[in-house]
Amino acid sequence: MTIHEKWMNRALILAEKGRGYTSPNPVVGAVLIKNDTVISEGCHKKFGAPHAELNAIGKAGNNAKGATLYVNLEPCCFHGKTPPCVDAIIRSGIKDVIIGIIDPNPQVNGNGIKILKDAGIVVKVGILEKEAKTINRGFFKYIKKNRPWITLKLAVTADGFIADVTGKSKWITSEPARQFVKRQRSLHDAIMVGMGTVFKDNPSLLPESTNGFIPYRIILDEVLNIPYRFKLVSDDFKKRTVILTSQKSKKEKVKQFKSTGINVLNVASDDFGWIKLPDSFRSLAEFGITSVYCEGGGQVAGSLITQKVVDELQLFVSPKILGEGISSFGGFMRSLDEAINLNWGEPIKLGQDIFLKGTIV
Amino acid sequence: MTIHEKWMNRALILAEKGRGYTSPNPVVGAVLIKNDTVISEGCHKKFGAPHAELNAIGKAGNNAKGATLYVNLEPCCFHGKTPPCVDAIIRSGIKDVIIGIIDPNPQVNGNGIKILKDAGIVVKVGILEKEAKTINRGFFKYIKKNRPWITLKLAVTADGFIADVTGKSKWITSEPARQFVKRQRSLHDAIMVGMGTVFKDNPSLLPESTNGFIPYRIILDEVLNIPYRFKLVSDDFKKRTVILTSQKSKKEKVKQFKSTGINVLNVASDDFGWIKLPDSFRSLAEFGITSVYCEGGGQVAGSLITQKVVDELQLFVSPKILGEGISSFGGFMRSLDEAINLNWGEPIKLGQDIFLKGTIV
Repeated sequence: MTIHEKWMNRALILAEKGRGYTSPNPVVGAVLIKNDTVISEGCHKKFGAPHAELNAIGKAGNNAKGATLYVNLEPCCFHGKTPPCVDAIIRSGIKDVIIGIIDPNPQVNGNGIKILKDAGIVVKVGILEKEAKTINRGFFKYIKKNRPWITLKLAVTADGFIADVTGKSKWITSEPARQFVKRQRSLHDAIMVGMGTVFKDNPSLLPESTNGFIPYRIILDEVLNIPYRFKLVSDDFKKRTVILTSQKSKKEKVKQFKSTGINVLNVASDDFGWIKLPDSFRSLAEFGITSVYCEGGGQVAGSLITQKVVDELQLFVSPKILGEGISSFGGFMRSLDEAINLNWGEPIKLGQDIFLKGTIV
Repeated sequence: MTIHEKWMNRALILAEKGRGYTSPNPVVGAVLIKNDTVISEGCHKKFGAPHAELNAIGKAGNNAKGATLYVNLEPCCFHGKTPPCVDAIIRSGIKDVIIGIIDPNPQVNGNGIKILKDAGIVVKVGILEKEAKTINRGFFKYIKKNRPWITLKLAVTADGFIADVTGKSKWITSEPARQFVKRQRSLHDAIMVGMGTVFKDNPSLLPESTNGFIPYRIILDEVLNIPYRFKLVSDDFKKRTVILTSQKSKKEKVKQFKSTGINVLNVASDDFGWIKLPDSFRSLAEFGITSVYCEGGGQVAGSLITQKVVDELQLFVSPKILGEGISSFGGFMRSLDEAINLNWGEPIKLGQDIFLKGTIV
């Protein structure tokens, strides 16, 4: 690890402090360094609050003069909720700015760098670029495609079933894999399930700890079937529930849910009664959600995968064999020549299970 | 790696030279060392030929006096096809004997070590013991359970199918995985398939190279259905074909096959027309086969796994999704509570595929 990477890594760690609170803005961390020593640090704490660079510069005061700024994303150069960061950087007397990755937002997209350079600041871009992109993959997807980053999670047996023939799926995977999933929840703006999963498990879809950030809990519910008593619409976190439903749902129930703080978004559905996913994702982006962790079931998985809207597949393969059961991806059938193709990442053993990561080709 | 491990590792490498030719005997390598320098080396080249220790001692002559012998398996102490190795070791003046693992053969099983110690030789056992056991896992299974070591190989899609709904399975996995399988073939005494696979693929089941050892090719064929023109009963290697068949097969066809050098073994079958596997494995052990690489199809996999006769499951998971297809383990159905349980080993990425290794709990 070079010196640049060392301090960029620190900026990335600081950025994570804003996880969940900054959307649809990116998470950003900033470190001011002189003589390989930290002068000050900052992060973007939540949407609308000062940016990471401003926080670091503010803390450093006059000491910022001559320092090097490390920031994982290109500093902004436009008036949004806060004034442009580049102005503050130039005013502070910072000598060097080291950037992880260019901000894809058309209002920035290299202009921030240009302004800094024009002001005589030495700028270096691309330090831990891959990590800087990964940490804000939701933001990148949101800016470039106007939809959230979609992670699809499935827990399957060694022979590929998400449940036995009776529909039982508790517990296919073991505790370490389930803990891992709970941590993944808090890395996404929202968690999504279909009504099959809601009726089967009555889940609360909460992350490992409910002290901090609670991601939105999205339900695909075409006709607003969910009973009032179910956890997702009755627990203490119901303001963090988003129901995607069609015009067919009863107006009275929509009104009732909305009155308790539940978010109900109207989206299109198809002739088979399935919520149209690409439409839904645009609605979710407008709602400010930049990343969604989809936890099934098989019908949702099948829809997501055939519509090629999965950015990352997380497959937890348990050491169990059933012979027969419920297929992991429902509602379609392909020949080998027309199979949906993935790229596997490096596999990991996670407790008793295997964790496979894939991206759609 | 200690000095002992260094030379034991060399013995293990030498042992591999006999792979395929020594069964039902183990593979054994021996190294004679003085002052951390090799005096001579030997291996057990084939069944009935001199043992590794004798080869090394013979080459060393008088120089063996005072040397240290490294051998992966306890030297024998009985008159078989060759005289006892312990006698030759004692006569040679060897001072130390370093052994990988005790020979489980009841005729040896620690007696070889006792005789050496009684003769004043310093004996050390258990260097690279795990590796020494793995290299002869077929021999260990054969001696202890009177059946071969069974490896079950399956190539599946990400959703657990061994073929699409039309039955097509070429090619689920990519070239590196297929090459890996061909190398695995030459590490086993025999390869086994069911008639489903024979009819579908007309395979030749040959290893990567046909210059060296050709493993036996076993077909489970209850009524001797295989057509005369099929590769396994008509190619140049037909003497390396073993057909497991029941009493129901036509005597004329048995005779015809035997006359061309094909091995036909009579085994029991059940009411559903399936060859009884535990019986078959005893027959194969009597035939001198200590390890079998089972390459499917789904019915064979299902039988093997439910009868719990799989010692190692090799699962190649391709980056393809079909939605529906042919299940990897046919002919049974379990609830999640009664699932067959495995232990996963460390997963590996192999070309575009994932290689998972499991043992039955």
